[in-house]
Amino acid sequence: MKTTLHHDLLATALSAVRAKSPLVHNITNYVVMNNTANALLAIGASPVMAHWTEEMAEMVAIAGALVINIGTLDDRWVEAMLTAGREALRRGVPMVLDPVGAGATSQRTAAALRIIEECKPRVIRGNGSEIMALVSADIRSKGVDSSATSHDALSAAQSLARSTGAVVVISGETDYITDGSVTHTVEGGHPIMTSVTGMGCTSTALVGAFLAVEPNPLVAATSAMAVMSLAGERAAESAKGNGTMQVLFLDELYNLNQDRL
Amino acid sequence: MKTTLHHDLLATALSAVRAKSPLVHNITNYVVMNNTANALLAIGASPVMAHWTEEMAEMVAIAGALVINIGTLDDRWVEAMLTAGREALRRGVPMVLDPVGAGATSQRTAAALRIIEECKPRVIRGNGSEIMALVSADIRSKGVDSSATSHDALSAAQSLARSTGAVVVISGETDYITDGSVTHTVEGGHPIMTSVTGMGCTSTALVGAFLAVEPNPLVAATSAMAVMSLAGERAAESAKGNGTMQVLFLDELYNLNQDRL
Amino acid sequence: MKTTLHHDLLATALSAVRAKSPLVHNITNYVVMNNTANALLAIGASPVMAHWTEEMAEMVAIAGALVINIGTLDDRWVEAMLTAGREALRRGVPMVLDPVGAGATSQRTAAALRIIEECKPRVIRGNGSEIMALVSADIRSKGVDSSATSHDALSAAQSLARSTGAVVVISGETDYITDGSVTHTVEGGHPIMTSVTGMGCTSTALVGAFLAVEPNPLVAATSAMAVMSLAGERAAESAKGNGTMQVLFLDELYNLNQDRL
Repeated sequence: MKTTLHHDLLATALSAVRAKSPLVHNITNYVVMNNTANALLAIGASPVMAHWTEEMAEMVAIAGALVINIGTLDDRWVEAMLTAGREALRRGVPMVLDPVGAGATSQRTAAALRIIEECKPRVIRGNGSEIMALVSADIRSKGVDSSATSHDALSAAQSLARSTGAVVVISGETDYITDGSVTHTVEGGHPIMTSVTGMGCTSTALVGAFLAVEPNPLVAATSAMAVMSLAGERAAESAKGNGTMQVLFLDELYNLNQDRL
Repeated sequence: MKTTLHHDLLATALSAVRAKSPLVHNITNYVVMNNTANALLAIGASPVMAHWTEEMAEMVAIAGALVINIGTLDDRWVEAMLTAGREALRRGVPMVLDPVGAGATSQRTAAALRIIEECKPRVIRGNGSEIMALVSADIRSKGVDSSATSHDALSAAQSLARSTGAVVVISGETDYITDGSVTHTVEGGHPIMTSVTGMGCTSTALVGAFLAVEPNPLVAATSAMAVMSLAGERAAESAKGNGTMQVLFLDELYNLNQDRL
Repeated sequence: MKTTLHHDLLATALSAVRAKSPLVHNITNYVVMNNTANALLAIGASPVMAHWTEEMAEMVAIAGALVINIGTLDDRWVEAMLTAGREALRRGVPMVLDPVGAGATSQRTAAALRIIEECKPRVIRGNGSEIMALVSADIRSKGVDSSATSHDALSAAQSLARSTGAVVVISGETDYITDGSVTHTVEGGHPIMTSVTGMGCTSTALVGAFLAVEPNPLVAATSAMAVMSLAGERAAESAKGNGTMQVLFLDELYNLNQDRL
C-alpha cells in the first residue's frame, strides 16, 4: 500500500479509532450489513444498524458518525436516511454517503442528490461511475459495478467536491480522495477485492469510523482507504477465492496496528 | 458430479457467464443476500439487489436476468416482485422464481402462484415440498426445508412444467430439471450442503446467471445445478462444519473453469 | 466452560434438539439473519425467517419456538412481532425475546416492554445494559453494546424475572440465567466473541431451539448459553481474527455432541 498521506497521520487516526471505539450509526443495505458490522468491530469501532424513522433523532444523538448507503433503498429507507442525515447535520455529527448504483437508475441518482443537498455529507465515496453520475445525469452505469476508471472520474470528483463542500472518494485500482483542491491517492489492494460483495460499502463504513475521531475529513477518508488497501493486499496473500477473501480481510483489519502501518 | 447434460454444453455455458458477466437483478430474501451476491460474483456474473418499486422498470431494463425469491416476503416486496416480473416478461428478460416456503403458509403458496401466473418465469426452482405445494394445495411443508424426496416430487414437477411452460427444478440428493417432457438429472453434491442456509437460494441465483447467457432454459438450469453440485462436493472435502463449508463453497465456485468440469 | 447446570441435563437437551430438529421461527434483525440461520442449522434445528404479518398465524402454528429480536426494527416489524408473539402466547409456543439496543433509544425500550407485556416471553436475553434499561428507564446504553457488567445487572435481571415471569439471561464474561429465585451461571467463552457481530443474537436463537424441546426454560436457556460458551472457546483456539472466528464458531457448534460436553 502506498499513499500520499503521511503515515504518522494514518497511525494516529487508527489509534484514535481503537482508543475511542466510536459508535457508528449505519443506515445501509441488506447485502452488506453483517460484513459492515464486523469490519467496524475489527477496526475497533462500535457499530449500530438502525433505520426506524421514529428513533433516528435519538440514535444520531449518541453516534460519533453516520453512514448512509443507498444500496437497497425504498421510500421508507429514503425517509429514514433523510431524517437521520438532517439530524446529523443539525448536531454536527459527521456523515458519509455511499451512492451505491447512482446512475444505474434515475431514482437512485435522484435519491443520492437529495441526500447530498439536504444532509450535506462530510464525505461521499463511490466508484467512478457513481461519482460521475452525480455530476452528470448523462452517464448510465451498468448496475452497481463501475465501468469508468478512477482516473476518468477524478475531474468529476473534484467538481463534486467543490460544488458540495464534501470530500469525494473514488475507489479503484488507485483511490482518489479529494476536497477539490488537495487530492490524496492510495495504491495497493488486490483485484480479488472486486469479487467480494460490499468491499466498497465496507470502505464507506470505515470512513465513518475515522470521521468520528478525526476532524479533518480528507485525513479521515484517506486513512480508511489506506486501511482497506493494506488489509486487502494482506488477505489476498492467503485467500483461495472470494469466500476466504471475505473472511481473511476481516482478520487482517482486526490485526492491523500501528506497527503494521 | 454426474449429469445427463452434455459436458460441452455445460462448459460453454460457464464460459459464457465468465465472458459476458451478465447483470443479474435479484429480489431475494434477507438471509441469503450476501451469499447470493458472492456466489454470483464467484461464477463471473454481476449481481444487483434492488426492490424499490419505483426503480424496478429501469433496473430490469439493464438486467440480463431477474431472480425472484420469496424467502422473506411481505406486501411491499410482493408488489416489487410483481412489478419487476411483469416488466421482465414484457421485455423478454428471463426470470427464475424460487418459491421458498411454498406450502408452509397459504400466503406463500398464493404469492408464488400469483407470480407464476402474472410473470411467467422461465424457470422455477424449489425443493420437493415446495414444488408439490404449487401443484396441490393439500401438501403442507415443515417450514422452508423439504420433507418430500426429489423423486416423489418429480411427477409434480413435470405437471407444473407442462401447465406453466416453465422449466421446473427440484433440488435434492438427485436434482431433476424438467420441461415436462425432457428431464435432466444432476447427482453429486454433499449432505453438508443442507446445513448451510440458502444453498437452494444460491442455486436459483446461478440459474439466473446462466439464463442471461444461454437461451435454452433446460440447459441453463441444468448447468447451474451441475455447477452447484461440483462446487459443493469439492468444498465438502475440506469443510470442517457448515461455517467453513459456506466459505469454501464460494472459493470452489470462484475457481471452477472449463478444465475442472 | 463451567456451568452450575448439571451436565446430564445439558447433554439431554442438546440430544433432543438434534433428534427433533425443531422448526424455530425467527423475526430478527437484518445484520444477523444469515448467521442465525446457520447457527440453528449447526445445532440441529430448522430455522425459518418470516415477518409478513399476514402469514404470522400460520407460521407460528407450525413452529416449535418463536425468536423475537428487535435489532433493526421499524413500525411494520413491531407489528409483525406483536402479531406473532400474541399468537405464540395463545398457542403455547414458547418465545424468547432479544431486546437489542433497549436503552439506546426510548423507542426501543418501549417496543421491548410492549412485546413483553403483550406476548409474555418465556425467556428474555440481553446484555447488562439492555436488561437494566428494561427495569429502569434511567439507564441509557451506548448503542447496542453493553457498558454495564453482568454482575451489576444481576439484581435487575432477578427483578425483571419476578415481575414478568420470564427467565432472564444476561450475557457477559459470566452469563447469569435466572428465574428470579434460582440463578444459574455459565463461565467460559472468549473475549474475541465480542468482536463478532451478532453473537448475542445467536445465543438468543439457540435459546429458541432449546425451548422448543425442553419445557423448563431455566434449563433451556442455560443449555443454550453453555453451548455458546463451549463453541466459542473452542473456535477461539484457531481463530486469527473476527472473520475466522465467525466461521469457526459455526463449525464448532456443528460438531458439538454429547461426548464433547
